Amino acid sequence: MTSDDLYPVTRLAAVREATRRAGIDALLLTPGPDLRYVTGYNALPLERLTCLVVPVAGEPFLVVPRLELAAAEHSPASRLGIEFAPWDETDDPYALVAARLGRVATVGLADRMWAMSTLRFRDALPGAKQVLAGSVLRELRMRKSPAEAAALAEAGAAIDAVHAQVPGFLRAGRTEREVGRDIADAIIAAGHDTVDFVIVGSGPNGASPHHELSDRVIQAGEPVVVDIGGQMPSGYCSDSTRVYCVGEPPAEFAAYYEVLMAAQEAACAAVRPGATCASIDAAAREVIADAGYGERFIHRTGHGIGLETHEEPYIVAGNDEPLAPGFAFSVEPGIYVPGAHGARIEDIVICTEEGGDRLNHTPRTLTVV
Amino acid sequence: MTSDDLYPVTRLAAVREATRRAGIDALLLTPGPDLRYVTGYNALPLERLTCLVVPVAGEPFLVVPRLELAAAEHSPASRLGIEFAPWDETDDPYALVAARLGRVATVGLADRMWAMSTLRFRDALPGAKQVLAGSVLRELRMRKSPAEAAALAEAGAAIDAVHAQVPGFLRAGRTEREVGRDIADAIIAAGHDTVDFVIVGSGPNGASPHHELSDRVIQAGEPVVVDIGGQMPSGYCSDSTRVYCVGEPPAEFAAYYEVLMAAQEAACAAVRPGATCASIDAAAREVIADAGYGERFIHRTGHGIGLETHEEPYIVAGNDEPLAPGFAFSVEPGIYVPGAHGARIEDIVICTEEGGDRLNHTPRTLTVV
Repeated sequence: MTSDDLYPVTRLAAVREATRRAGIDALLLTPGPDLRYVTGYNALPLERLTCLVVPVAGEPFLVVPRLELAAAEHSPASRLGIEFAPWDETDDPYALVAARLGRVATVGLADRMWAMSTLRFRDALPGAKQVLAGSVLRELRMRKSPAEAAALAEAGAAIDAVHAQVPGFLRAGRTEREVGRDIADAIIAAGHDTVDFVIVGSGPNGASPHHELSDRVIQAGEPVVVDIGGQMPSGYCSDSTRVYCVGEPPAEFAAYYEVLMAAQEAACAAVRPGATCASIDAAAREVIADAGYGERFIHRTGHGIGLETHEEPYIVAGNDEPLAPGFAFSVEPGIYVPGAHGARIEDIVICTEEGGDRLNHTPRTLTVV
Repeated sequence: MTSDDLYPVTRLAAVREATRRAGIDALLLTPGPDLRYVTGYNALPLERLTCLVVPVAGEPFLVVPRLELAAAEHSPASRLGIEFAPWDETDDPYALVAARLGRVATVGLADRMWAMSTLRFRDALPGAKQVLAGSVLRELRMRKSPAEAAALAEAGAAIDAVHAQVPGFLRAGRTEREVGRDIADAIIAAGHDTVDFVIVGSGPNGASPHHELSDRVIQAGEPVVVDIGGQMPSGYCSDSTRVYCVGEPPAEFAAYYEVLMAAQEAACAAVRPGATCASIDAAAREVIADAGYGERFIHRTGHGIGLETHEEPYIVAGNDEPLAPGFAFSVEPGIYVPGAHGARIEDIVICTEEGGDRLNHTPRTLTVV
């Protein structure tokens, strides 16, 4: 995949048109996933302002510290044919943006813009109401193009390759941190640019969904929740959870693990265009509640994924957003017994015209090592 | 070093008092360096709101997604004796903060708070003026405690150990990216938690100060700028630049490298309490300008360092902030000849009662490999 496939140069015009339709006068995109989505430029977030300005009236331009000019010129943003406006160390780049923009009533800020920039823009553009650029970009970013879907599938295959190695890392007597270090190395070796998170939750630590790594020594007979992900050179992210057991699992655990597999299966099977995000959450939750574990499933069923590990749409009660082809998200119900153990099974699923395709394919059954 | 040394529990009260003196009613600290500085809690930045609320009237509390509660309870924040207020997946955590805070006229936001939270707080606290928490925290964060200074020295020793290995990685025929990969591995092996940046600028790429890595093959006779850093488990960062040459350097380069060493030396020698940041910049710039290379030094002389690689104080023209004991910052003048080569020498320096201590000690002379 080239930048042109993943970050087509036509996207900027589409974003500008969507901005106009939303009644926003300009987008202000600082480094982060919004800027990367629109330009392909993976700029470092720094205290020096880099900002793509997309006015509805007038041409887009990239404000960039002179120090970063060469990096910007070597980035995919150079394909867009837009002006790069460098600023020097003692210039005020916020005043520069304001002077070039002129009077604007509403500006859309990158969702992850730092407060240090948000407040500077508020003061430099005193008449302008600030809203989130996400209000424009979410519709575009949620619908993955075929190239984006392929990039997510590539990320899925990479993290599957890591899960396939986990049984070789896990054994009684090793600490979670030791296992986690091997996994982190494998994430990079599998082609990721960065390790985004490595959760190894052994025994009671498996009952804390966002536990990461500790010096706890893994014991025989313990289930271990392994939830891992990273970002590929494409910019797209992986995220998959599997459960392993070091020897035979406790009977109570084995019983609810069967329930969890059925719940995850039911939620994946419910994916189709038009089904709401809330209905996917409900599909998993119903199976777990019916088996008497409703109180043990303490989080939403999933989150969108793309250039961010967590992005819209969120698969959660109350979210009536209907799925559409290209929506990509995790399906990851869990059951947690505090003080004892827990389990979670997670695949990335992409909505197609007919239903949903899973992008993770390692066995979902409990892997006894 | 323990959390108690680096992140003393008394800090929260000092921050609250400084907030009161600044005429701010409450700080709102989302995950990032501000939150870590105040609590020791290295929380992941996520779309679910985690926020330390520090009201001047009333007790501090930590709003935390229920999913992150165990992580927060296992973090150094648990030492502070503050209330943890968990919220559930379908709650509105911004409304929760607003209801508990009551009427406030001014709130200080973590400098890196995401716009998605800044705007939600703006709407949830409609009467409150938003300012940066940095206006309160900068004075505290700039003055490193003895424990913080020791953590920076430890980071300095770790990156020095990496620079000591660089001659073994560099040779004609290898690409910048291959060398960079070895350096990244060495940064982790030297005790860093994360690799923050690896710049290997060979030949003409050395003339772009923020060039990172490319597939360019390093040639015999080329200078190579190596600017590297990472974050230690303590939270404190390293950052050091040295220049290497693969074989004998070009004569023009050797001439200005001598100038650069003298400039870096002059700036380090100028460090003392009461000297302004601008005067340190000027000390380096004067040497370079006097030798006729003024136009080739295209960036500020340095940046503060601590929990962030770039933080206050900035060593730049116009910054009249006087140095004080405990201020830690980079001194990194550079000379760049576009299309040919460039050089930069960087040490972290900490201001003491008497002058300045450098925290990097590998040779600053050009290392010919």
